[in-house]
Amino acid sequence: MNAPSRSPLAQAFPAMPAVRGARFATGASGIRYKGRDDVLLALFDPGTTVAGVFTRSSTAAAPVLWCRQALKGGKARAFVVNAGNANAFTGAAGMAAVKATVAAAAKAGGLPKGAVFVASTGVIGQPLEVERIAALLPGLAGRASEDAWGAAARAIMTTDTFPKGASRATAIDGAPVTVNGIAKGSGMIAPDMATMIAFLATDARLPSDVLQAVLARATRLSFNRTTVDSDTSTSDTLLLFATGAAGNKPVARPNDARLKGFREAVEAVCLDLALQVVRDGEGAGKLVEIRVAGARSATQARRVALGVANSPLVKTAIAGADANWGRVVMAIGKSDATLDQRRISVAIGGHAVAHRGGPPKGYDEAPVAAHMKGLAIDIAIELGLGRGTATVWTCDLTHGYIDINADYRS
Amino acid sequence: MNAPSRSPLAQAFPAMPAVRGARFATGASGIRYKGRDDVLLALFDPGTTVAGVFTRSSTAAAPVLWCRQALKGGKARAFVVNAGNANAFTGAAGMAAVKATVAAAAKAGGLPKGAVFVASTGVIGQPLEVERIAALLPGLAGRASEDAWGAAARAIMTTDTFPKGASRATAIDGAPVTVNGIAKGSGMIAPDMATMIAFLATDARLPSDVLQAVLARATRLSFNRTTVDSDTSTSDTLLLFATGAAGNKPVARPNDARLKGFREAVEAVCLDLALQVVRDGEGAGKLVEIRVAGARSATQARRVALGVANSPLVKTAIAGADANWGRVVMAIGKSDATLDQRRISVAIGGHAVAHRGGPPKGYDEAPVAAHMKGLAIDIAIELGLGRGTATVWTCDLTHGYIDINADYRS
Repeated sequence: MNAPSRSPLAQAFPAMPAVRGARFATGASGIRYKGRDDVLLALFDPGTTVAGVFTRSSTAAAPVLWCRQALKGGKARAFVVNAGNANAFTGAAGMAAVKATVAAAAKAGGLPKGAVFVASTGVIGQPLEVERIAALLPGLAGRASEDAWGAAARAIMTTDTFPKGASRATAIDGAPVTVNGIAKGSGMIAPDMATMIAFLATDARLPSDVLQAVLARATRLSFNRTTVDSDTSTSDTLLLFATGAAGNKPVARPNDARLKGFREAVEAVCLDLALQVVRDGEGAGKLVEIRVAGARSATQARRVALGVANSPLVKTAIAGADANWGRVVMAIGKSDATLDQRRISVAIGGHAVAHRGGPPKGYDEAPVAAHMKGLAIDIAIELGLGRGTATVWTCDLTHGYIDINADYRS
Repeated sequence: MNAPSRSPLAQAFPAMPAVRGARFATGASGIRYKGRDDVLLALFDPGTTVAGVFTRSSTAAAPVLWCRQALKGGKARAFVVNAGNANAFTGAAGMAAVKATVAAAAKAGGLPKGAVFVASTGVIGQPLEVERIAALLPGLAGRASEDAWGAAARAIMTTDTFPKGASRATAIDGAPVTVNGIAKGSGMIAPDMATMIAFLATDARLPSDVLQAVLARATRLSFNRTTVDSDTSTSDTLLLFATGAAGNKPVARPNDARLKGFREAVEAVCLDLALQVVRDGEGAGKLVEIRVAGARSATQARRVALGVANSPLVKTAIAGADANWGRVVMAIGKSDATLDQRRISVAIGGHAVAHRGGPPKGYDEAPVAAHMKGLAIDIAIELGLGRGTATVWTCDLTHGYIDINADYRS
């Protein structure tokens, strides 16, 4: 098949300053793709701490199983990512491939194996030609550079049509700190996880348990509020590496007031990346924000919002720029959240389309139809029952999604 | 838009013998469609009993709310169905429209209002021009016939590409009994409900509580095992009318051995109709059967099966005839059922594609790829944990679904 064309919602790759103590190099394994880099080696200075969140899939890939174990040590020196083969549902051979990758990276960098993290993304259920990856690693270790964030973001892409990066500057107790992140999508994206592969690096000096708390909260506020197609990957991996090069004073608790800026920076980078993943959702033509208010609880609000975000009929109506708000009502109604349809109101693009159980008086579809033609669709739902709120983001469901997924083996 | 072309999985409308005591007439209201009948009036002889199951949506349409009440009486004399406007999320005006329809049908047939049932299917959230329906009913009542099953099935269609009917002959305690049914799909189809609109009529003589138990079980075994697009309609209605004309001896308990043949006939008609709805799923090109065995419970097996059946990535792979079994594993894994990936095996078309956590030894994709090119796709999943089993049916996700739903306002 032809490569999918660049998403109309694509963003330019941002300027990414170096994160002191974090270096990158990329190479081409030839495992699946031709003429592009598909292996990333990230190296971190001694003292780097790490946090991570992973897919909740029961068929999690071998690299995820490895990372969950390695995370217990709280220290990281290297991260190896390959794109094109997910090394998922590959049984004992899959774990052997992970260990071979880890051993090769440890040898290339002179590192302890327990400080090497691995992620794989691509086709599920195919044996990984790990020797092609291992052969690259000594060369990559020799040329890793702090200035290769763009190359890193490109090397981990699969069906992505643009590389995804985000950066924020902040400070901890007066010491300047950088938070960078990159991510890849772009199908098999659903919440209750991280996204497929994303990682952040910062020069902050923080213990791993503090990092973990900051990252878990940021995940809830970002990746776990997005969905492309309701399918949860076997390989979702989100890692946060902190090199400590900023030399800030020690902070031992995640809710320490001195970490406010850092928490916000991590949350902002995660949300930026998560929205870029949605903007590059397979076949995406429109970015859709769904806000639910008035639910009995935040959990119920999120459930309603995700029901709307994952509804094929809502997503195809948006693809067709059809102001068919009845489908939004349908998707609300199928939720098992507590609902009273006589209290439900819906606005699209700020225009009321349904008011407490029926069409609003004197409803004029024209401004709603105009909004539906845009690239950013806004759906606000009021349930009228309580104070629970939630916001989620998704994209539309288009011919492009069928093109990509009826032909591309991912 | 052009009307969708006839499903490649379409079935011919079967021979439908008369059900004594059940008469039908159809007419054209002009509310939404041009040049076709879109209103059905069914009339039942005195003594007809009725059972029903309905959508579990919290935004159930006004006709559903009416039928739930009317069902408490257990008696039916008429059923009015209109296609093109669902009279859903239409507030107080929607219930007034239902009552106007009921009043018109009651007057036309000289019937008690509580014995008139109503169903509407089509666009959600638009006021129903009920006077157009009411104006037709006297004429329809005058020409209703026992031989109009085909016309009835055609009149209730929306995006359906073929009319759906099924018939079985059975006996109760020696008395011959007929069970007929018709249904319409073909999007907004997901389980935990009936389908959009279906009804059965039989000449059996049975009390309504017995009918209800038989119908509830049949629904679990048929409609609730199918899904087209995971979206649950506001209007799902399944009714079973029993005219009593067969004159069989009284039977007071649903599990009476004398009802075995009748139960099986109702179940067969429901399953036949449910599979026809899937065969006509919007854009469907292939009928997919998913069988799960070895789950901890039947409930968990069904959850896994539905996760696979509703996965956009599985459904698009099937549309593309891609033997991409990794997506099946992904869809199994995202379920919250108890799983151990080292025990999971998958077969497609009878060929092992995954065996206890990884690819089978010497895996040959050729016969699987050949099976994927067919019209009937068979996926068997063994979880290796217990004795729970489930079977569900779905269709693939194609460009046709996008065509229909990005343009058609349903």
